[in-house]
Amino acid sequence: MKIALDAMGSDNFPQPDVEGAVAAAREYGEEVLLIGDEKIVSPVLEKLKPGNLPIRIIHAPEMLTMEEKGLALALKAKQKEPKTSMAIGVDLVKEGKADAFVTMGNTGAAAAIAFFRLGMLPGIERPALAPVFPTRKGFCVVLDIGINPDIRPQNLVEFAIMGAIYTESVRGVKRPRVALLSNGEETGKGNFLVREATPLLKAGPLNFIGNVEPKEVFAGAVDVAVTDGFSGNIFLKSSEAVAKMITDMIKDKIQSASLPVKIGGLLVRPALADIRKMLNPSEEGAAPLLGVDGLVFIGHGRSDARAVQSAVRVAAQAARSGMQDLIRREIARRGPDDAKTGGVG
Amino acid sequence: MKIALDAMGSDNFPQPDVEGAVAAAREYGEEVLLIGDEKIVSPVLEKLKPGNLPIRIIHAPEMLTMEEKGLALALKAKQKEPKTSMAIGVDLVKEGKADAFVTMGNTGAAAAIAFFRLGMLPGIERPALAPVFPTRKGFCVVLDIGINPDIRPQNLVEFAIMGAIYTESVRGVKRPRVALLSNGEETGKGNFLVREATPLLKAGPLNFIGNVEPKEVFAGAVDVAVTDGFSGNIFLKSSEAVAKMITDMIKDKIQSASLPVKIGGLLVRPALADIRKMLNPSEEGAAPLLGVDGLVFIGHGRSDARAVQSAVRVAAQAARSGMQDLIRREIARRGPDDAKTGGVG
Repeated sequence: MKIALDAMGSDNFPQPDVEGAVAAAREYGEEVLLIGDEKIVSPVLEKLKPGNLPIRIIHAPEMLTMEEKGLALALKAKQKEPKTSMAIGVDLVKEGKADAFVTMGNTGAAAAIAFFRLGMLPGIERPALAPVFPTRKGFCVVLDIGINPDIRPQNLVEFAIMGAIYTESVRGVKRPRVALLSNGEETGKGNFLVREATPLLKAGPLNFIGNVEPKEVFAGAVDVAVTDGFSGNIFLKSSEAVAKMITDMIKDKIQSASLPVKIGGLLVRPALADIRKMLNPSEEGAAPLLGVDGLVFIGHGRSDARAVQSAVRVAAQAARSGMQDLIRREIARRGPDDAKTGGVG
Repeated sequence: MKIALDAMGSDNFPQPDVEGAVAAAREYGEEVLLIGDEKIVSPVLEKLKPGNLPIRIIHAPEMLTMEEKGLALALKAKQKEPKTSMAIGVDLVKEGKADAFVTMGNTGAAAAIAFFRLGMLPGIERPALAPVFPTRKGFCVVLDIGINPDIRPQNLVEFAIMGAIYTESVRGVKRPRVALLSNGEETGKGNFLVREATPLLKAGPLNFIGNVEPKEVFAGAVDVAVTDGFSGNIFLKSSEAVAKMITDMIKDKIQSASLPVKIGGLLVRPALADIRKMLNPSEEGAAPLLGVDGLVFIGHGRSDARAVQSAVRVAAQAARSGMQDLIRREIARRGPDDAKTGGVG
């Protein structure tokens, strides 16, 4: 597979991005197109001695920063002649010159560029970002976690279909259990969106197990949790914030404690480090932006080389799985009526 | 102050409820009206030797369970002659025979009963449940965390006013910092509700500091975080679930580890217990149901006697503070136009 990778994406670009690309090319044999300012990227790549690895730099004179937003961003996203590393990368996918695009850059910018330059899959109205969360039993794909703060019930159905196909075909979960994230499991609970989407999902072909609260997600009772981008973002950010608060509190408590507790702290340090690693989303690489007409993966700005490498691997897996065609087919299968109420395409 | 307390509220009723009542009467001198089945409550109270403490049992032939919901609940909530401990307790407040009602029972049932029997304060359209969250620097009041899954922007403004008055007059925070919970701090972020409510709050008299993400709540950057009941519930439940997952993971890790780590685990146990206690919402007693025309506090079903005692104390504080009148006055001060767009009263 040929993966286009934004060399200017991560907070510490281009080091983690280029290092991750080299590792992915070396370990998995994937071809990587490194997109970025040649003057900046080339010396970093050379230092890593790529030898005969299938890595090539594609020059991009501009880059999008974390500050990019609003109208200025929309104009850059739509520029006819692509100049930014993100636009060039997305266009490679559009033109069939790459199988997927991966970036660790500004999520909003990447989503806008993908949306404007690739368009949507027919019958899908809104894109959704679908990261993987650690649970007590493995993982759960949660979508949308931040692209669409305001949606319609039908969009939740689209998210459920796309999330289930991604989880089955790329993450290897047979007939994944799908649920709507809600404020309670009983019928009648949920906001307007959840209440309207529940019967649509019950009537559909997915393995829909009903509505779940956040505790079921973390307990591993569900493989795909579906929600709007506002609630999903609150879910993501609360989880991250509480995890950080607790691990910080443990550190503080131990540091300011008596000698025996301090010694205990030293002894349990490896166990705590394991947990912190498990909770670290960068381990998972990047999340797919589902629904756009082309494979795009977006990772955390603070990703290290290992996360970049893992993102390239997952993007290649997604390309091999034929996931996009499966989504296309499933949406078409639902018939013109569903497609009409659900889509703009 | 005279506090009506549901003796049949907690999961382990009536023991924690009655024990908490006795402790509150003894330590703070508050008068407690214990409402419940006399045959059940009386022996428990007698065992605790209340002597001359200002505690009195008021018989209630029925109780509402955790299973109560829907139409059956609505009918019970509206019953003319109150029979359940919740309805009798709420009616005592309505008739001025108690200054506040406290229950550790079914949140939905308590909210429905309070709403139907007390009605709303003039100019307030929706009630909001406002618990206190632990933060790195102290606490933050978050509302609504589950009563109203679907609201209008104006309701967020009402929640902000009520939350600020409660936090200042009962929790003792001078000119509390108020923020909307959102998926980002920048202007333009947020869902429809947040985007519409932001200018209304900016133009108002509160110490509105803008929009915050969950991490700012836990960092202690804000005293009152305002949100709709659906997102607020996701926030609450994600936080609880992640806290539980991490403390469980730490326990598992240590138990299955090598001897030195196990010894370390024993040594850090007090520090972990402190943290678990800090994260335990039952320490905070109960949350006010703001907006109804009478003071009602609702706590966790799993509350122990200490949580019940603390709830009685906070309810008495709220009654003494004149909080309800402060809310009434602030809503009236906003003028008939605001009151009209914001209220049903």
